[in-house]
Amino acid sequence: MATIIECVPNFSEGRNRAVLTALEQTAKSVPGVSLLDFSGDKSHNRSVYTLVGSPKGIEEAAFALCKTACELIDLRHHSGEHPRMGATDVIPFIPLSGATMEQCVQLSKRVGERIYEELKIPVYLYEESACAEYRRNLASVRRGEFEGLREKMKNPDWVPDFGNAPHISAGAVAVGARAPLIAFNINLDTPDKNIASEIAKTIRFSSGGYKYCKAIGVFLEGKNAAQVSINMTNYAETPLYRIFNAVAAEAERRGVKIIGSEIIGLSPARALIDSAVHYLKLDGFDADKQVLDFRIGE
Amino acid sequence: MATIIECVPNFSEGRNRAVLTALEQTAKSVPGVSLLDFSGDKSHNRSVYTLVGSPKGIEEAAFALCKTACELIDLRHHSGEHPRMGATDVIPFIPLSGATMEQCVQLSKRVGERIYEELKIPVYLYEESACAEYRRNLASVRRGEFEGLREKMKNPDWVPDFGNAPHISAGAVAVGARAPLIAFNINLDTPDKNIASEIAKTIRFSSGGYKYCKAIGVFLEGKNAAQVSINMTNYAETPLYRIFNAVAAEAERRGVKIIGSEIIGLSPARALIDSAVHYLKLDGFDADKQVLDFRIGE
Repeated sequence: MATIIECVPNFSEGRNRAVLTALEQTAKSVPGVSLLDFSGDKSHNRSVYTLVGSPKGIEEAAFALCKTACELIDLRHHSGEHPRMGATDVIPFIPLSGATMEQCVQLSKRVGERIYEELKIPVYLYEESACAEYRRNLASVRRGEFEGLREKMKNPDWVPDFGNAPHISAGAVAVGARAPLIAFNINLDTPDKNIASEIAKTIRFSSGGYKYCKAIGVFLEGKNAAQVSINMTNYAETPLYRIFNAVAAEAERRGVKIIGSEIIGLSPARALIDSAVHYLKLDGFDADKQVLDFRIGE
Repeated sequence: MATIIECVPNFSEGRNRAVLTALEQTAKSVPGVSLLDFSGDKSHNRSVYTLVGSPKGIEEAAFALCKTACELIDLRHHSGEHPRMGATDVIPFIPLSGATMEQCVQLSKRVGERIYEELKIPVYLYEESACAEYRRNLASVRRGEFEGLREKMKNPDWVPDFGNAPHISAGAVAVGARAPLIAFNINLDTPDKNIASEIAKTIRFSSGGYKYCKAIGVFLEGKNAAQVSINMTNYAETPLYRIFNAVAAEAERRGVKIIGSEIIGLSPARALIDSAVHYLKLDGFDADKQVLDFRIGE
């Protein structure tokens, strides 16, 4: 079985087509890498690229994208709904078939070091690559955002893993290894961002909610709607339908409804199949044995 | 993406272990084909084999199995609950990943012709491969069963597509292409079979219901519960969740509830993903692009 690693870098640009195209072309230019998906969000002013490939190819592509972003994105002129601290905001490496988490941790450290050495952008290692428990969480690493970086780096607890001062226009970047993540957003029939924020608080781990759930409330200008923007960090332990049902119940309590949801980028088939099994009340369903697609190639 | 075709031949033998083993070994002997499942039913005196593989492998395996069955099964000495007309009773070809229905129609015609040319067993093309609308339905093709074949073939409407007289011991075989079928049963919190039968009537095509739905009401002695027993003949056009919701509404109208459901055998991942998309209210979700499992190996 070939070793496949996924990389899902996030960039602080979701509006300028030329920049998005340059990032796309950079991703496509690296041998051994497939660009599976990319999407820019105007109100978040942010874009996400999904790459899979060989460890060598992914390592090269991650660096190349960070370099392109550094040349084309200036955080001093950036605004958007989503918290961010860098032109390339975060670079996660995810082990897929044949790859281990440790392999991704080592890869993230090599890429982080190179980003600082060649581009002079300071790097925080996060999640599985973090040097200390309190630095695992991306929200903690990013707290203060781009504007607060200079101050943050003076705090001995928050000296970057590589570098010690922010890049003037590209800020800082979080690099690390993690399990597959699903970006799952739920839209409400209200423009009131506060309601989305309240609901986000009820479901996220950091405020007493579900263990593998991160969530914030945002306002989507294009849709004139509030959104609970969610990251599911372990869909096997905290499944999508449980979060969806919890959001529905909390929304109802506040007199609002879910008008739709979206998955940004990719999702493993299993995460969705688990939800189907729940809603269709399937008893004794064994996905490993009964899903035809999982049996092909046996 | 590799082209994968499924084939689920049915044989008129469910009791003689030696015959079932010979069929199993025939299926396993063809390169490029995996035998995913097989089961024999004693009261039906019938067995079903589920194979997947490359178009070439599946074409060869279907013929080889038909040849083995012709050598070992004699319909002149066959009795069982299930209607049947041949040693190999029916050979459906189902397009899975990367395959088209038209490809399966062409494949079914080649296999049908070869069965007649080499084994002298006459062949009716059915479902998507049928030469006329009235010959699509398997129940119509099989009406009269093995014992009525000689008479049936004299009727100009029922001359086989290949051959014109029954094989003395192997009868005739129906060969065709069809969409994947899902056996989907919904259990009610009542032992009253009449309620399940009434609900079945409201959802099945033959009584004015959904186009790709067959259903009957049955009583499950083991569970002391009534069940709506459903065959979904095209999950893309008539999706599982729509049938589930319709059954829930009809059940509620009659004061009963759904206590659970089950899928018998295999289901394509997509059928379940479609249901997850419905219940999670996912907007703009493109399974071809966003399901990671469908993208790896591109």
